[in-house]
Amino acid sequence: LVDDEPFDVRYGQLVSHERSLDMRAGTLTRQVRWRSPTGREVRIRSVRLVSLTHRSIAAISYEVEAVDDTRVVVQSELVANESLPGRDRDPRAAADIGPSLVGEETLTHRCGAVMVHTTRLSGLRLAAGMDHDLEQPGHAVVDVDAQGDIARVTLAARLRPGERLRMVKLVAYGWSARRSRSALHDQVVAALAGARESGWDGLVDDQREFLDEFWSGADVEVDGDAQVQQAVRFALFQMIQAAARAEQRPIPAKGLTGPGYDGHTFWDSEIYVLPVLTYTHPAAAADALRWRASTLAVAEDNATGLGLEGAAFAWRTISGAECSGYWPAGTAAFHVNADIADAAIRYVEATGDVEFEKDTSMPLLVATARLWRSLGQHDMEGNFRIDGVTGPDEYSAIADNNVYTNLMAAQNLVGAAEVAGRYRAQAAGLGVTAEEMASWRDAAHAIVIPYDERLGIHPQSERFTDHARWEFESTGPEKYPLLLHFPYFNLYRKQVVKQADLVLAMQLRGEAFTPEQKARNFDYYEELTVRDSSLSAGTQAVMAAEVGHMDLAHDYLAEAALMDLQDLENNTRDGLHLASLAGTWHALVMGFGGLRTEKGVLSFSPRLPESITGLCFKLRYRGRRLEVAIDADHAAYRLLEGEAVSVLHHGTSVRLDPGQEASRRLPRIRSRPRPQQPKHREPPPHHPGEGA
Amino acid sequence: LVDDEPFDVRYGQLVSHERSLDMRAGTLTRQVRWRSPTGREVRIRSVRLVSLTHRSIAAISYEVEAVDDTRVVVQSELVANESLPGRDRDPRAAADIGPSLVGEETLTHRCGAVMVHTTRLSGLRLAAGMDHDLEQPGHAVVDVDAQGDIARVTLAARLRPGERLRMVKLVAYGWSARRSRSALHDQVVAALAGARESGWDGLVDDQREFLDEFWSGADVEVDGDAQVQQAVRFALFQMIQAAARAEQRPIPAKGLTGPGYDGHTFWDSEIYVLPVLTYTHPAAAADALRWRASTLAVAEDNATGLGLEGAAFAWRTISGAECSGYWPAGTAAFHVNADIADAAIRYVEATGDVEFEKDTSMPLLVATARLWRSLGQHDMEGNFRIDGVTGPDEYSAIADNNVYTNLMAAQNLVGAAEVAGRYRAQAAGLGVTAEEMASWRDAAHAIVIPYDERLGIHPQSERFTDHARWEFESTGPEKYPLLLHFPYFNLYRKQVVKQADLVLAMQLRGEAFTPEQKARNFDYYEELTVRDSSLSAGTQAVMAAEVGHMDLAHDYLAEAALMDLQDLENNTRDGLHLASLAGTWHALVMGFGGLRTEKGVLSFSPRLPESITGLCFKLRYRGRRLEVAIDADHAAYRLLEGEAVSVLHHGTSVRLDPGQEASRRLPRIRSRPRPQQPKHREPPPHHPGEGA
Repeated sequence: LVDDEPFDVRYGQLVSHERSLDMRAGTLTRQVRWRSPTGREVRIRSVRLVSLTHRSIAAISYEVEAVDDTRVVVQSELVANESLPGRDRDPRAAADIGPSLVGEETLTHRCGAVMVHTTRLSGLRLAAGMDHDLEQPGHAVVDVDAQGDIARVTLAARLRPGERLRMVKLVAYGWSARRSRSALHDQVVAALAGARESGWDGLVDDQREFLDEFWSGADVEVDGDAQVQQAVRFALFQMIQAAARAEQRPIPAKGLTGPGYDGHTFWDSEIYVLPVLTYTHPAAAADALRWRASTLAVAEDNATGLGLEGAAFAWRTISGAECSGYWPAGTAAFHVNADIADAAIRYVEATGDVEFEKDTSMPLLVATARLWRSLGQHDMEGNFRIDGVTGPDEYSAIADNNVYTNLMAAQNLVGAAEVAGRYRAQAAGLGVTAEEMASWRDAAHAIVIPYDERLGIHPQSERFTDHARWEFESTGPEKYPLLLHFPYFNLYRKQVVKQADLVLAMQLRGEAFTPEQKARNFDYYEELTVRDSSLSAGTQAVMAAEVGHMDLAHDYLAEAALMDLQDLENNTRDGLHLASLAGTWHALVMGFGGLRTEKGVLSFSPRLPESITGLCFKLRYRGRRLEVAIDADHAAYRLLEGEAVSVLHHGTSVRLDPGQEASRRLPRIRSRPRPQQPKHREPPPHHPGEGA
Repeated sequence: LVDDEPFDVRYGQLVSHERSLDMRAGTLTRQVRWRSPTGREVRIRSVRLVSLTHRSIAAISYEVEAVDDTRVVVQSELVANESLPGRDRDPRAAADIGPSLVGEETLTHRCGAVMVHTTRLSGLRLAAGMDHDLEQPGHAVVDVDAQGDIARVTLAARLRPGERLRMVKLVAYGWSARRSRSALHDQVVAALAGARESGWDGLVDDQREFLDEFWSGADVEVDGDAQVQQAVRFALFQMIQAAARAEQRPIPAKGLTGPGYDGHTFWDSEIYVLPVLTYTHPAAAADALRWRASTLAVAEDNATGLGLEGAAFAWRTISGAECSGYWPAGTAAFHVNADIADAAIRYVEATGDVEFEKDTSMPLLVATARLWRSLGQHDMEGNFRIDGVTGPDEYSAIADNNVYTNLMAAQNLVGAAEVAGRYRAQAAGLGVTAEEMASWRDAAHAIVIPYDERLGIHPQSERFTDHARWEFESTGPEKYPLLLHFPYFNLYRKQVVKQADLVLAMQLRGEAFTPEQKARNFDYYEELTVRDSSLSAGTQAVMAAEVGHMDLAHDYLAEAALMDLQDLENNTRDGLHLASLAGTWHALVMGFGGLRTEKGVLSFSPRLPESITGLCFKLRYRGRRLEVAIDADHAAYRLLEGEAVSVLHHGTSVRLDPGQEASRRLPRIRSRPRPQQPKHREPPPHHPGEGA
């Protein structure tokens, strides 16, 4: 309150207002200058952080400076069960389950309070606490009260012009499915005490130190496109924020930024988010995979229930159990299992983490290989078929021999055989025999990859190219996303692609395609892909770059990058599109940097669109830090930290020694005619000249 | 009450008990001799009928005769909202929606009562009334009371040995979505008065007269198998009872005999039940098709909602709106539209009902032809494909080019073009142009019929034969029906057939297959068909007979025939399997009688298994009555009523003149090795020697 008038920017006069996210400091700062309806002016500056180093701590520094002589009252609250906005009918938004917390206790604590609640349906216990440090120039009144779902600290003081009042709020959370009320209460009190010991400045310093270390192996610099420059750092910052302390919990599709998809995680965590973490903050990727491995028993039960061997991991989950109620797009999307295997193989390849490979990766690979072996079967000609499954594209379902699924399954099967061959004793402990390993290699070798000779392209699944094309010409722009306007019956039976499927297969299993096939496939699927999923643009950017559509790649990069910063799908209120943010990094590092792994060797095929004059990115790789700096003609490779290592530059080996730069020329890109997208679904025009 | 002791056969002594259904009289008689726990003996004889001639009347004659001197109290009730047994978890049983009637009024009326209720959700109004005629030897006390959901007439009398008490109960029903409470009240009072005017004897006589007329054009006599003899008459009786007064309401899958499938009707009404009615009581078939036609507007809306032209009729419905919540097995089962067309074409062919053809059949055929034309599309080679639909077999879904669907759609398209060609003015009124008719013929001519050259058989849908076979060997008998024990995910992706699909196509569109293809196809699908649907056996019997598996045909005939009489699926409590009952007639008349239509000519190819020594059936055909009597060597054709007509006997024309018998020799049947069924799913062994 400013002289009894609530501070509300919709009333009075907002003289100035700025909110800035400092991605290096890890803090969000708001500076406001406001004149109340009664003419009293104040300056407010708040800085807030969610600590990346103190596991359960968030903190806010809130300062009010009087411009005029005024009475100021500042209230700090802790509120449970605050009601959400009305239910959205978009199936991608969260289900409204009503007030979900049942109060157990609410007590004042020092200059703050502690609350303990349990979740209504799942019975999880959650404690939250707050404490405050107060600074004010003279006399002040402080009230602390706490009851039910609300706790409140009220600070009232009189400020003369130029005088300042400051409230530092520390907030701690803790939860458990097993610990008692008093244990959780103790836990948040202890966390608050630990945070007090660090103090505000200590929390800010720790935050900066953590992020400095992160950026030293992760930063991406983009010359010539300030919007994308900002966006890729935003993307990396959001990913590290979602993942750094997820520990052995899933990384949800929205991180912790909104209620969309009910906090569930999907396969895109493994395929989009984990590769970024693997090369920038590998410990977080390992943790996410350890979480998956912790759900192995549930996945094994799921496989058994489906009449299959091994483990069938959940396509949509928070606890390991399948949360998708629509099986054609959930359970049948078995590729999630090969996606997990892909993430585990990539993590081990990029880190050389042998303990993880033995303890976590091998059980995952073996269980999923067994799944594939029982899900598929050899036909009379000896081909290994996987029928009746759903690939990444959710506008097709229950198809036979989806190319993405089959290629990823083959990698999964071979990967399992290889790891079992490396750690024979441990593999024997899982019951793996030489015969079983041979049957995995055999299935992988014989896997069916349908090819349409007439069109010279790969159908994304068998018979896909026989189906009618969607009527793109008569589908108005208001009919997108199609899933909200057309029945799945209609979508499933036509050639229309929600998100990269065959194109994603070309990114992740590029060696299975010739360059000519890649080019033809890419152009064919461009005409069918409506990008009703935000997962799509990043992948299309990577493959557009590989096949030589450089400007199109840049447009897709921008779409992925600006998905949330410009709220392109009008649903950022439900939370950030974490996989699309990851797609920004994919587009830059895998697209224009050409990062791949070829036979276990880190490989780059840099190529830039004309509109980007320079690209420089840092990576962590097997205990080293690398930097790749690309301009129109050259790529310069540097080993920033660690022992010498060789990488590939456009297929040629380059040895990187400490302190030396290896510069290589870029081959010329053969530019190709820009392919067509479905009407109304061209990527939004991007003008890289404009500032962020 | 017999001397204060309730008559309950679970107590006291049941000296004798017999319940008999007289299918010629249309009455159900129960005769009981019972000694009460206190030693008083009575004889009870009840006769009941649901009138086939008095639209809304049922009646019961209830007689009690004293053996010992005794006091007898008889109560007759009308009860609404009687609670059903606990909910069954079988998805095929009815959903329990709790008490569904809301009382509006309950009043005594003469020696009885009238009640009016409305249905809770749909707001339909229902009136029920009862009245009684009482006869007793001496003094009696009569109470009539009515309140809420119960009305009761109590008759108390003293009977000396040999004395008899009789209560004739008349019951009337009426319902309406629009009429007022008093109008419905009046309606049942009027119906009761009308029934009183006829009296019990008049009702019984009318019932017999109606059924005499029915049997004169419908009876089937089977020599050598008393069980099947009884069963086929039971089947015909149940069908006429379900259909005779359905008028323009659907004929439910269970008729009116039980709550299974919630009273809904499905496609099997048109494919199984209507052909029987078409040849035995054609007016009922016409009424059922007029009901379908009355839902045309709903079906057109449904098509529009799916982005299609014409009309998409409901797969499961009671009012015309789709009631199946699971679209892969409901909405996607578009064949229902061609099934309706088949029934309409067959009805017109069998009756020559020109008015019906113009007014009812043509709008149905045109609307469904337009559906097929928009659902399918020509591919680059000019073939007409219908992708992403579900055929009759519910263990596959969302497949491409289902043979049954495509053949039936082709007939539908050609049928629409033909009828529009016959009635050009009326067709023009529906907007049909010569171009549109040409496009129908064109699509029908080019329809894709997949064929597997390797196996020399037709896959039921494209790629079906590439799929893994179900693991029949390891599936125990307790795992059937599979739908209750395995996820659809697993069923859909394997070669396992719930019910005749390709085999039904061979019955209904036999001209599309060579005899050799039929034989190979039949044997192939025998190995895969588990008959988890009661629709299957009748069809398998027909085609087994056609391809020469005569004993197997007899076994399947028996399975269809005894489905309910022997409660083979343990669910007759949910109601009769009306389509399976129809399948009994199909097996005999279409299987052993070989009834088909060839180019508009009624055709027979009689052949009997050794175990059936004679088969004689009557038919109605274009205003005539025909009889076909078959023994081991000959078939004798007789025209019982009407003008001379020609039919085909094994492809050769036979002219039938009034009063003359045309006898023809039967060709020899080449017997073939009996095919295998899935383990545990052989048809139950049938011993025709045993009595019924």
